[in-house]
Amino acid sequence: MLSREECADLDRDDPLAYMRDRFILPEGVIYLDGNSLGPLPKAAVATLSHTVEQEWGQGLIRSWDDAGWFDLPQRLGDRLGRLIGAAPGQVVACDGTSINLYKTLRAALSLRPDRRTILAEAGSFPTDLYIIEGAAEGHRTRLLGRDGDTLDDLLDDDVAVVVLSHVDYRSGALLDMRELTHKAHRAGALVIWDLCHSAGVVPVELDACEVDFAVGCSYKYLNGGPGAPAFLYAAHRHHEASRHPLTGWWGHAAPFAFERDFRPQDGIRRFLTGTQPILGLKGVEAALQLYDDVDLAALRAKSRALGDSFIALVEQHPDCAALQLASPRDSAVRGSQVAFTFPHGYAVIRAMIEQGVIGDFREPGLMRFGLAPLYLRHTDLFDAVEIMADCLRRQVWTDPKYQTRAAVT
Amino acid sequence: MLSREECADLDRDDPLAYMRDRFILPEGVIYLDGNSLGPLPKAAVATLSHTVEQEWGQGLIRSWDDAGWFDLPQRLGDRLGRLIGAAPGQVVACDGTSINLYKTLRAALSLRPDRRTILAEAGSFPTDLYIIEGAAEGHRTRLLGRDGDTLDDLLDDDVAVVVLSHVDYRSGALLDMRELTHKAHRAGALVIWDLCHSAGVVPVELDACEVDFAVGCSYKYLNGGPGAPAFLYAAHRHHEASRHPLTGWWGHAAPFAFERDFRPQDGIRRFLTGTQPILGLKGVEAALQLYDDVDLAALRAKSRALGDSFIALVEQHPDCAALQLASPRDSAVRGSQVAFTFPHGYAVIRAMIEQGVIGDFREPGLMRFGLAPLYLRHTDLFDAVEIMADCLRRQVWTDPKYQTRAAVT
Repeated sequence: MLSREECADLDRDDPLAYMRDRFILPEGVIYLDGNSLGPLPKAAVATLSHTVEQEWGQGLIRSWDDAGWFDLPQRLGDRLGRLIGAAPGQVVACDGTSINLYKTLRAALSLRPDRRTILAEAGSFPTDLYIIEGAAEGHRTRLLGRDGDTLDDLLDDDVAVVVLSHVDYRSGALLDMRELTHKAHRAGALVIWDLCHSAGVVPVELDACEVDFAVGCSYKYLNGGPGAPAFLYAAHRHHEASRHPLTGWWGHAAPFAFERDFRPQDGIRRFLTGTQPILGLKGVEAALQLYDDVDLAALRAKSRALGDSFIALVEQHPDCAALQLASPRDSAVRGSQVAFTFPHGYAVIRAMIEQGVIGDFREPGLMRFGLAPLYLRHTDLFDAVEIMADCLRRQVWTDPKYQTRAAVT
Repeated sequence: MLSREECADLDRDDPLAYMRDRFILPEGVIYLDGNSLGPLPKAAVATLSHTVEQEWGQGLIRSWDDAGWFDLPQRLGDRLGRLIGAAPGQVVACDGTSINLYKTLRAALSLRPDRRTILAEAGSFPTDLYIIEGAAEGHRTRLLGRDGDTLDDLLDDDVAVVVLSHVDYRSGALLDMRELTHKAHRAGALVIWDLCHSAGVVPVELDACEVDFAVGCSYKYLNGGPGAPAFLYAAHRHHEASRHPLTGWWGHAAPFAFERDFRPQDGIRRFLTGTQPILGLKGVEAALQLYDDVDLAALRAKSRALGDSFIALVEQHPDCAALQLASPRDSAVRGSQVAFTFPHGYAVIRAMIEQGVIGDFREPGLMRFGLAPLYLRHTDLFDAVEIMADCLRRQVWTDPKYQTRAAVT
């Protein structure tokens, strides 16, 4: 049995404990939804206020140069690179994940013009599938996992590109990036990895795994702010030959020459399109600075430990006996989130939120909890499970007020 | 001769004079570049600080519902609709202008599957041409104005869509939206209007002119902030049949059902793609609120008067004799900007900026001045022209320090 005292001991020994104070965390809230929207870094308050009042307000148009706005996508891209194992010059922060997936997918397809099949996971975050549908342009899409089909079953010499999620958005299952990338490469296919649920919390080694392209968002574990710009990785070796159709002036070789025809830049900037959202990028910049003081191995170790604690706390509690673990038990193949299935999960999550424990719910019956190691404590998890157990004991699902579906969360 | 006293009289009689106080305008600056980046509305400071500290910081994920984040694109779209003559349900604020042009262009092409030609202006803002190039997908693009060709010369029954700028980004020339739209329609083509240099300052009547699609940005005359989200208009009659490939979850009929296949929403939301930048949208919201107190006819009248004053002030000044007007003299066919050509224009603009008069420069030899009626006074223009004249008198282009090209501006 894991007691609250033992949780407090774990917190005391936590080498990352000092990071919690870098965030604004509302009084009375235990926030287990940082995998949907990370909390506000204190540094972002000052950065954004400076950006608005000084850079925009006083600098006006001059800030494009003087405040370095124009280079933000690449500068932040290189900062992100350290977190996802990418050498400089291969990452840009820009647009949203969907737009970036569209660009990388079209770029990948342009590199395999004779192949007509795209492989994706049936269990992908749905917007990935929608974008693949939009970008397919005559290619056929086959879904891994739909009829139990694995990559081995579906990989053949017609497959142009495989789109995979590094961490499953529901279960938190972590895929083996190196093995799957090499498997695809052996069949002549390229791979795009979706890092939305791994960047900033799970070690990612894009260069070392010889990944072709990757996309991800910065408002989940990276804490960049609501709707903050996403990012895009393209390996150096693909810059010159790949083409995508979202050719805007920020990707032009001479963006201020106002030439009539498009000429792509040499490097990663060719993956930029139009003017980028500066406030959003500055939020990301403030959030990324937090990582300057973080040892990534310690971050991963704490993330795994939080997951292990949370599973133990739920499974040891008699009132939680009806919950079924829906995530890998082995932390080595689990991201930084843990999910349980329970038929009345929606009502339980609603009732927990009312008591300050914010998790979320995904059909079918999935109670999902993000365990972000930058600011959560083992004692938070203990207290959250006590509140969850209380909701279960009270059978909150019998109360109609917890059954009305809200629009979002 | 227009004297400074007469300018002060015009300012005294200005029915919009009260609006200037709604903006932060740096001490010692006369800002004639609001057509590139509008200044900071005072209301935006409070709105953005509230969004960051309260909505993000305290509300966290709950703000998607509680703070109305999720509906911002449509809510702001309807607000924008009033400024561009669009009934509710036809405009969304989202992404950037380039992405939105891509979406509307692909949508328009989907409505004219048997036609293979796109017409665009040779003098378009270049990114429009780059995006058209990217979106063309086997269509040919013919350029209006390249060899003196007019719309009458190039319109035939192979033209699927015509892309036009309402106000030319260099000269400020204002096109006749109604006449050109109807001309294209008579040939069976659709029209997309780029409103980047007209929205918020020139009357736009999209519905009344029976426009098909339009795009525009919100960080120029609309003062939404650096890189703020753009907007997109699609006429009701085209919602159901048109298709674009940037199909993300925000455009799905049931965005929270996590269905595997894409089903577009019924209305304008089908033109949304992924999660939108909330900070940027909130900046736009604060800026649009300013228009609640603005009579649009008075705004246009002041804009025309400012242009007339500026032209008179430059042309009456003996030291400005070498400048050639590059904008329409008739304010009825001029947007809210005035440009002059001068071989040493770049150095003059640089020297003027150093003295606090911020305009900008576009090749070839174009000194461009945005005359935004919400915050500029006739006396500002008088003082700006005095400084310009001083730079010309001093022949600043003989000083090497004004010849180095900066990266942006």
